[in-house]
Amino acid sequence: MAFGGETENFMGISKSYPMIGGESAFNYAQNSGYQRGVIDATKNIIAEAITQKLDIKSPTTTFRIADFGCSTGPNTFIAMRNIVEAVELKYQSMQQGIAQTLEFQIYFNDHADNDFSILFKTLPFSPPYYSAGVPGSFHNRLFPKATLHLGHSSYSLQWLSKVPEEVQDKNSPASNKGEIYCTWTRKEVREAYYSQFKNDWTSFLDARAEELVEGGLMAIQLPGVPHGAVPSQTGAGMLLELLSSCLDDMAKRVIVMNNKFTIERMEFLSQPEKDLFDPILKSLHMRATDEGIIIDHFGTGIVDELFDLLTKELDENRHICENELRTDVDLFVLLKRKSSGR
Amino acid sequence: MAFGGETENFMGISKSYPMIGGESAFNYAQNSGYQRGVIDATKNIIAEAITQKLDIKSPTTTFRIADFGCSTGPNTFIAMRNIVEAVELKYQSMQQGIAQTLEFQIYFNDHADNDFSILFKTLPFSPPYYSAGVPGSFHNRLFPKATLHLGHSSYSLQWLSKVPEEVQDKNSPASNKGEIYCTWTRKEVREAYYSQFKNDWTSFLDARAEELVEGGLMAIQLPGVPHGAVPSQTGAGMLLELLSSCLDDMAKRVIVMNNKFTIERMEFLSQPEKDLFDPILKSLHMRATDEGIIIDHFGTGIVDELFDLLTKELDENRHICENELRTDVDLFVLLKRKSSGR
Repeated sequence: MAFGGETENFMGISKSYPMIGGESAFNYAQNSGYQRGVIDATKNIIAEAITQKLDIKSPTTTFRIADFGCSTGPNTFIAMRNIVEAVELKYQSMQQGIAQTLEFQIYFNDHADNDFSILFKTLPFSPPYYSAGVPGSFHNRLFPKATLHLGHSSYSLQWLSKVPEEVQDKNSPASNKGEIYCTWTRKEVREAYYSQFKNDWTSFLDARAEELVEGGLMAIQLPGVPHGAVPSQTGAGMLLELLSSCLDDMAKRVIVMNNKFTIERMEFLSQPEKDLFDPILKSLHMRATDEGIIIDHFGTGIVDELFDLLTKELDENRHICENELRTDVDLFVLLKRKSSGR
Repeated sequence: MAFGGETENFMGISKSYPMIGGESAFNYAQNSGYQRGVIDATKNIIAEAITQKLDIKSPTTTFRIADFGCSTGPNTFIAMRNIVEAVELKYQSMQQGIAQTLEFQIYFNDHADNDFSILFKTLPFSPPYYSAGVPGSFHNRLFPKATLHLGHSSYSLQWLSKVPEEVQDKNSPASNKGEIYCTWTRKEVREAYYSQFKNDWTSFLDARAEELVEGGLMAIQLPGVPHGAVPSQTGAGMLLELLSSCLDDMAKRVIVMNNKFTIERMEFLSQPEKDLFDPILKSLHMRATDEGIIIDHFGTGIVDELFDLLTKELDENRHICENELRTDVDLFVLLKRKSSGR
């Protein structure tokens, strides 16, 4: 097996490579069942966070939610509906009056070349739930100051904003010669990716700190591996280990240093039921997320053959793959916007 | 000449027919110079309205603007930039402090099958000007209560939400047998369209009245003919006369009856310099706006031939067309959201 569906993160992106849209059999909408599982697994955790941790000081008649890295749906719709329901429940138990007049504005963010067309045509919300699409990189500001009450990001923050420059420089000790992703074996490469990952998290957190109201929440889900798990010697395993180690560092240093958020919760999720390993589905899943990057590097000519080959390889290495998949977990981080005074 | 580019309004739309997007030579972006002229002609009027009439009671750090029926750009970008500049100027002259921290949220509304992709990829705004796309019919609510400060709609409100049912019913006295638009000759047809037009305006005004803050403004531009002008015997002329008569009625009765707006200003615009009559451009212009409706009725097969023929007809009837075009004017209506108490 070459590498798994979660390794896109360390390939890096100097421009955006949206998930496959449209009505193709390879589209993200039909090939994101795993990500849907992650959303289901966090439903109760997010509901609990909203009940216990959401702490909006100033009264509002419009509750604003944003999904950062929404892709084309339908996963984003399910996540947003879960949040809306939890917020309504909270307000109903607090003050009858507010809940009755409360309206929601739900913002869907992704790169401008995301397939917003399919997202817009399948939007399931109607008044008092108002939808809007916000195109642009979530490493930059996307909303006016203190206008969001809750931010959500699922399976998006593992994408880097660009390939680190050192990695692209053939004369640098961090040059990633011959590799298509961040290998664990070379310290310089690892550190270059690590540093890019930290920078991207910092720019994300800085932007959200401005956009969220005091007491507002930011819920983040992304792939990782459990502490102490022995990473397999495959690319996927090593990348996941690196990601996990980065995330620990984020939580312990970067988020705290950022000084505008408190970490309210951070844990590993287990999807209640993992699908049985299916080489065809796994290959389709990977194509839905990674085709854009591959076409950009190698052209369109190889794509069909490449994924046919991957399916075959996955099938032939079924035993290894099944074991490896068991080491996958998903991380959940809940941040709360501090008062600006603190 | 069969009918002019402004006659789309009375053909009615039971579903949406977006302006042509993409990079085709027939797209709206390249074939909406006339509409651009209307925006230029209202720049100073809107700036004056913002200076003199905009009257936001509660202080705000985010100023929210929406363009209803934005199409694909770039006209909408020019209109929004004009508004932003006027609002900044107003706040600068009022209180230095507010102007320095003021941020803008600019919403672009059109049907879900509008080409939002090209709109999003060409967005010219960056912080502190934040953009969002809002898909949906502007005959319904699109925003939470009292969240917009200024609404804008240029060359959009002449579109009807649907063909009146009586007109589609072959057994009704209002059946529009054999005609592709609302003819002036048959009273029942005229009244059916007229009634639909009033209903559509009422639903538009009701929705905007909820969405605008007290003292907020709604600026509307649309095609018409001057009072007292003798309508030519062509379809275009008659339709424009009907539109104008409807609009008068709206202003005098429907808007006032709606009771949530005051009419601050209502006048005819003259575009400072009209382009010379060009059969090819006129035909392209019409194709950019009307192709969707025509394809829906007649299929794609006839489109190229139809517009080639139209160009030829326009060229052969150049003298009639030139005279007729001189009777075109554009109407500007400025409404202000009343206090809910009044």
